[in-house]
Amino acid sequence: MPERFEHGGNVYIPNEGRKWLDFSANINPLGLSESVRTAIAAEIDTVVHYPDPQGRRLKEVLSSYYAVPESALLLGNGAAELFYVYMHCVRPKRVLIPVPSFNEYERAALAARADVIYCYMKCEDGFAMPVNELRRQAGNADCILLGNPNNPTGTLTPASDIESLVWTAQKAGTDVVVDESFLDFRSDRERYAARSLVKQYDNLFVVQSLTKYYAVPGLRLGFAVVPEGKRRWLEMHKDVWNVNCLAQSAGIAALKDRAYQEKTQQYVRNAAMRLYEKVRAIPGLEPLPPTVNFMLTDAVGTGLTACHIGAVLRNEGILIRDCANYPGLTPFYFRLAVRTEEENEMLCKALKNVVSIES
Amino acid sequence: MPERFEHGGNVYIPNEGRKWLDFSANINPLGLSESVRTAIAAEIDTVVHYPDPQGRRLKEVLSSYYAVPESALLLGNGAAELFYVYMHCVRPKRVLIPVPSFNEYERAALAARADVIYCYMKCEDGFAMPVNELRRQAGNADCILLGNPNNPTGTLTPASDIESLVWTAQKAGTDVVVDESFLDFRSDRERYAARSLVKQYDNLFVVQSLTKYYAVPGLRLGFAVVPEGKRRWLEMHKDVWNVNCLAQSAGIAALKDRAYQEKTQQYVRNAAMRLYEKVRAIPGLEPLPPTVNFMLTDAVGTGLTACHIGAVLRNEGILIRDCANYPGLTPFYFRLAVRTEEENEMLCKALKNVVSIES
Repeated sequence: MPERFEHGGNVYIPNEGRKWLDFSANINPLGLSESVRTAIAAEIDTVVHYPDPQGRRLKEVLSSYYAVPESALLLGNGAAELFYVYMHCVRPKRVLIPVPSFNEYERAALAARADVIYCYMKCEDGFAMPVNELRRQAGNADCILLGNPNNPTGTLTPASDIESLVWTAQKAGTDVVVDESFLDFRSDRERYAARSLVKQYDNLFVVQSLTKYYAVPGLRLGFAVVPEGKRRWLEMHKDVWNVNCLAQSAGIAALKDRAYQEKTQQYVRNAAMRLYEKVRAIPGLEPLPPTVNFMLTDAVGTGLTACHIGAVLRNEGILIRDCANYPGLTPFYFRLAVRTEEENEMLCKALKNVVSIES
Repeated sequence: MPERFEHGGNVYIPNEGRKWLDFSANINPLGLSESVRTAIAAEIDTVVHYPDPQGRRLKEVLSSYYAVPESALLLGNGAAELFYVYMHCVRPKRVLIPVPSFNEYERAALAARADVIYCYMKCEDGFAMPVNELRRQAGNADCILLGNPNNPTGTLTPASDIESLVWTAQKAGTDVVVDESFLDFRSDRERYAARSLVKQYDNLFVVQSLTKYYAVPGLRLGFAVVPEGKRRWLEMHKDVWNVNCLAQSAGIAALKDRAYQEKTQQYVRNAAMRLYEKVRAIPGLEPLPPTVNFMLTDAVGTGLTACHIGAVLRNEGILIRDCANYPGLTPFYFRLAVRTEEENEMLCKALKNVVSIES
C-alpha cells in the first residue's frame, strides 16, 4: 500500500534504465504541445530575471480565456500550492471533505491544524457527489473542499448543485473551495464550472491546475478565482515570486493554442471510452465510466488487490495508481490514466494477463 | 517610495520597448552559465512528468557540495518560500529581526500572524550585526531571523558570533533562522557559514537561495538545512511538488560547474571594489564597502532622495533599488548590484550626472 500521502506520477523510481509507461498520473496523453515547447525554449534566457510578481501577462490571458476579472485571480506554483495558501491564510478549524478525493486536500487542511471531517461518496451511488449530505453538514465546518470532476472517481457535479451548496454554506458562514483542475478536458465544461459564481458569493474559491490539461506538471502552474476582497489577503500568505518565469510563458502559449485544446477534448473522449470498454471486458474488473482522462477501477471481482496488480505491472514497466491510500476505497481499487490508443492497448494486454493467470 | 513590501528586480515595468539595465536585483553579473542553459534546454521534455517530490538527485549533489546530510535538506521554490514554510509550520508568536533586512522576512512572519520586533543595525556602527543586543533580547522572541551576509547592508557575521547567538537562543527556547543566500559569492564563505552547526543545535535553520549566485531567479530554487528531527514536520507545510523539474536540473548542473563558481567569486570581488571606488568618488555619495555583489549607498550628502535619483536614472533605462521601504533606513539610501565592468561604468556616469546637475 502506498504511504498515506503518496501520489502517482513518480517516474523517478529506478526502472533498470528504462522509461516507465506511466498510467499513474493523469496527464494529457497528447504530451507537450509544440507551441508550449517553443515558448519554453525561447524564454530560457529570461530566467536571469525574477518572475513578474504580478504575473500581468499571464493574468491578462487567463482573464480573457476564462472570462473572470484579473483582480479575482491568484497565481499558484501548481494548484496544489493554492490549497496550502488558502489553509494557512484562512485557518479553518474544521474542514469537510467528500472522499475519496485528491489527498493534498486533507494534507493541506492538516498543515493548518484543522480537524478533517470525511463525507463518504458511496460506491452504490456510483460515487455521486453527496451534495445534500454536504449541505446538511455545512454548519458543522468552516470549509468544504471538493473536486469537480472529482479525482479519483471522475464524479461530475453540475454547477447548479455546486451553487446550492455554496448558497447553503454561505448562510452557515462556511467557505467552499472547488478544484476544477480536470474540467478543461470536457467540451461541455461550462455546465459544471463554478468560476463565474465567485463574483456573487464571497465564500467561494475556485482552484484550477493548468498542468494536467497542457501536460506541464513538471513546470508547476495553477490559478484560483477568489472573491476580489480576499485576493490581497491570500497573496500575503505566499512569497511574491511563486510562479516561475517559464511556467508563466508556457501558460500564455498554452491558453492560446486552440488547436491543441480541441484535439485534446476529442482525443481523450474517444480514447477514454475505448479504454473503458476494453477494461470492462476483462473478467473481474469494473471501471467507473470515465468523465475525463482517468478512470477508477474496482478489481474486487478478480480477488487481486491493486497493490498486487500494480506490482506485477511494474515488472513490465507499467505504473498504475494503487488507490488503497484514499479514504473510502477498498484495497481493490486502482486508477488508470487515459494515454494514447497504442499505450492503452499495451496496458489492457498486461492487465488481461495478470487477471487471467492469477485470479 | 516603493510600496511596503515591494522589491527590486521588477523588469516588467514597461520601458518603451527597451530592456532595463537592472541594478535593482542582486544577480550574478556573469549571467546564466552555459552548462545551466544547456541543462535547462535538454530537460524541457521532462516537464510532462511531475517533479521528483523527494528531489533525490538534487539533494545528493547539494549534500556533497555543502557537506550536509541529505536527511537535513528541505528544498524550496526559491529561498523565499522556505521562510513562509517555516513560519506557517512553527507559528512563532514573536519574531525578532535585525533591520534593515530582506523584507520577505517580515512579510513571512506577518503571514503567520506573528508580532515583529525590530532590532536596529546602526549606521554609526557601519550596520554591524547587533549580536549582543540580539542575545539580550533572545528570550523575548520565539524566533530570530537574520541574513548573513545581510541584505541590503552587506553585513558579514562570523560563524562564531552566529553560534554564540544560537547557543543563547537555545537556552531561551528560541529558534534562529539564518539566510545565507549571498554567502557563496565569497571564497572564504566557510568562516561565516552556519550550516555545519545545524547538527548540534535543534533550534538552528539555515536557508539559502541558489538563484542569485547562479543567475536563475526566474526558475526559483532554494534549500534549507534543518534539524533532522524537524524536516518531515516542515515538509508537511508545503505541497510535495514545490520545486519544478527545470529548477532541479539547473541546480544539479550549477553545483557541478566549478569553473563558473571560481570565475564568479573573482570577478565579483574585483568588480565590486572598482564600483565602490567609483561611486565613492562621486561627491555626496557614501557607499558601504561591499562584501558580496551589492552595496548600500547613502546619498544624503547630495541632498537628493533615492526616489528622486531612481526616477532620473529610470529615464535613462537604469533601475536601482530605492531602499526607503526598509525599516531603519532614511529615504536617502539606495542599493546597487554589481554588474559587468562596462555596465557599472554606465551606471557611474549616469549617477555622476544626476548628482552634479541636481545637487
